[in-house]
Amino acid sequence: MSSRSFLLVPAGSHFPLENIPFGVFSVQGESSPPRGATRIGDTVIDLAALEQEGLLPGDSFRNATTLNRFIERGRAHWREIRKTLQQLFSAENERIRDNTELCARVCHDLSQVELHLPVTIGDYTDFYSSREHATNVGTMFRDPENALLPNWLHLPVGYNGRASSVVVSGTDVRRPSGQLKGDRESAPHFAPSRLFDFEIEMGCIIGKENPLGESLSVDEAVDAIFGMVLVNDWSARDIQKWEYVPLGPFLGKSMATSISPWIVTLDALEPFRTECPKQDPTPLPYLQPREHWTYDIELEAHLLPEGETQQTVIAKTNFRYLYWSIMQQVAHHTSNGCNLRVGDLLASGTISGPEPGSYGSLLELSWKGTKPLTLHSGETRTFLQDYDRLTITGFCSGEGTRIGFGEVSGRVLPAHP
Amino acid sequence: MSSRSFLLVPAGSHFPLENIPFGVFSVQGESSPPRGATRIGDTVIDLAALEQEGLLPGDSFRNATTLNRFIERGRAHWREIRKTLQQLFSAENERIRDNTELCARVCHDLSQVELHLPVTIGDYTDFYSSREHATNVGTMFRDPENALLPNWLHLPVGYNGRASSVVVSGTDVRRPSGQLKGDRESAPHFAPSRLFDFEIEMGCIIGKENPLGESLSVDEAVDAIFGMVLVNDWSARDIQKWEYVPLGPFLGKSMATSISPWIVTLDALEPFRTECPKQDPTPLPYLQPREHWTYDIELEAHLLPEGETQQTVIAKTNFRYLYWSIMQQVAHHTSNGCNLRVGDLLASGTISGPEPGSYGSLLELSWKGTKPLTLHSGETRTFLQDYDRLTITGFCSGEGTRIGFGEVSGRVLPAHP
Repeated sequence: MSSRSFLLVPAGSHFPLENIPFGVFSVQGESSPPRGATRIGDTVIDLAALEQEGLLPGDSFRNATTLNRFIERGRAHWREIRKTLQQLFSAENERIRDNTELCARVCHDLSQVELHLPVTIGDYTDFYSSREHATNVGTMFRDPENALLPNWLHLPVGYNGRASSVVVSGTDVRRPSGQLKGDRESAPHFAPSRLFDFEIEMGCIIGKENPLGESLSVDEAVDAIFGMVLVNDWSARDIQKWEYVPLGPFLGKSMATSISPWIVTLDALEPFRTECPKQDPTPLPYLQPREHWTYDIELEAHLLPEGETQQTVIAKTNFRYLYWSIMQQVAHHTSNGCNLRVGDLLASGTISGPEPGSYGSLLELSWKGTKPLTLHSGETRTFLQDYDRLTITGFCSGEGTRIGFGEVSGRVLPAHP
Repeated sequence: MSSRSFLLVPAGSHFPLENIPFGVFSVQGESSPPRGATRIGDTVIDLAALEQEGLLPGDSFRNATTLNRFIERGRAHWREIRKTLQQLFSAENERIRDNTELCARVCHDLSQVELHLPVTIGDYTDFYSSREHATNVGTMFRDPENALLPNWLHLPVGYNGRASSVVVSGTDVRRPSGQLKGDRESAPHFAPSRLFDFEIEMGCIIGKENPLGESLSVDEAVDAIFGMVLVNDWSARDIQKWEYVPLGPFLGKSMATSISPWIVTLDALEPFRTECPKQDPTPLPYLQPREHWTYDIELEAHLLPEGETQQTVIAKTNFRYLYWSIMQQVAHHTSNGCNLRVGDLLASGTISGPEPGSYGSLLELSWKGTKPLTLHSGETRTFLQDYDRLTITGFCSGEGTRIGFGEVSGRVLPAHP
């Protein structure tokens, strides 16, 4: 597909007519409740209004403040809506293009809207699927010779995250306080985290419920994924270090997890399918898909200190580095009969690449604080400082066009005194 | 209070007029949606119907299929509703007692109703607050000399559980399959769990939301708890063993967590307040309440094999054994700014007492399978067998009366082939 929209799509935009992501918006200063939207260029399009006009089939968006009802309708419906939107906003279609009043009613400039969490997230799961990240962490904290734990190459390790504190991009994040204990201290004290970090991740939004007790096969899993978002899994390394043995990360993570506001469908990502890393040993049969693919999505992390105007690119990585695919994650997650629900978030874990510049967290980039990063301003960073803004962006590139996710961005507020 | 109800309360019932727990029910064979209820003796009382009659203040129950809206109204409202119900159903009050038609409309025999999950649970957290349980596990799997990990006496260790698979008592639970690896095997295989277990726990239902980024102090925490339920945290020990390092329990737990249908308020438990175990070392200030209390709640686990009629009491323990109080759990949970929401479930972790007969799981009762239990039928058990029914009951006893939770019960279905 290479059709164009009558709406302006700036060069390099993540949101050409080929994308058609889904989100939730409200108009600044208006009292109307949040409702479903898509985005073309920098124009946010009101899907509830289009539905009311009879221009979209179904009743997925009216009186809905999240996308869950729409997503529940299933893949055939998502495809129909996406195709209808591509037709409605193509350069050749005069229906909206030539109706100034209608166009003004359904189209809003990005600068005039507020974006909301696009779905109600029932459960949030965080995997640990980057071999490079797991190796770096194992090397730093355990044994460089046995950096990967014995289970790592056999299953996509994951844990339950905290759903209540998942927030949309743009939300400020307060530096947490918690129990900290230095290696040479005999007892912990309670203080603001000193090792506050980000993690470059991506997440799947689940599009289909499996009944409790019933698994999804790795080949069925693809139908259970609605789309993907960018994720910043904020992490307090010092809180985490003291608390996490033996039951895993808890307060070191649950202060906030940020996601990008636009869910990009797997259909939009389809042209950017690519091979997964080779898996050795061969996974058990329930983790062997007929086809084994991932997506080529370039990811960057930018850091902007308070008072500065120029952000520094501190990491460049790629979604395709992940060892375990999203289909394997879904198959494993449901292999014990655990039910996924529409809107659930399955995040990838930190996505690190093979080179130091491709590491997906400050923990790795500064190698536990031993190698400070130098920013454009000349300042250095080992971990995040108050009022730092951390932004992750992600996009697929091909044939002069980009399909992207926009960004997930958040600013660190100082801890409560 | 020692008033009596005109409704029959059988001797030993957990549900005298002093209790007034809250749940959600529907009438078997009727199409009306689930709605709020209380229970006196074996009578289930329709709160939506009472509200519609103008006999209960507010509009908490009409068109509500869970208790969340009611609970959001806050402690003063819970108290008002509970007191109103005690008055309406007291032996002296003729309003309902003498109106046969009204009485038939609002009162249903327990055998005629279906009980549902009482709240929408946003997040489910599982603590690990029994010193005896943590010591037993540490002794079995690590080092008897250093059974407790270094953080255990400083903070209530906990982890995020899976909310989607929390089910109400009575729901059958399917034995999960998963990756298992014996100590002498070089690689895992995928098979039904052989070490399927239960855990005696209790849980708090959160009654008040704290905004993201804001903590609740340990003294404020008591106002954030609506009430308590019994919890069976089903556990596949073999799946858990292979998966849980380093990020904690995941598929070993997420196949199901069962809760009792009736939420007993802290007000109903108030007469059974008792002292917590002494804490040494003294916790950090944010975990030091002005008053430090727990509740004296007797807990029993019963096992009933397929085809048998007599169940065996396999464990007797008590909620008051827990080292960390529910107020300390809430204060710790929110100490990093994590937001709790109304309806969240905070479970205690396995509640074990000091004696072998008071251990709260088969893992401990059979000491890792080395000491099989003998049941009434003469059969033995190390872990749960297919079609075993496991029931946990809990109650407070005082002055010839009981305030109790009823039971949480579930039967093990065989794994899918």
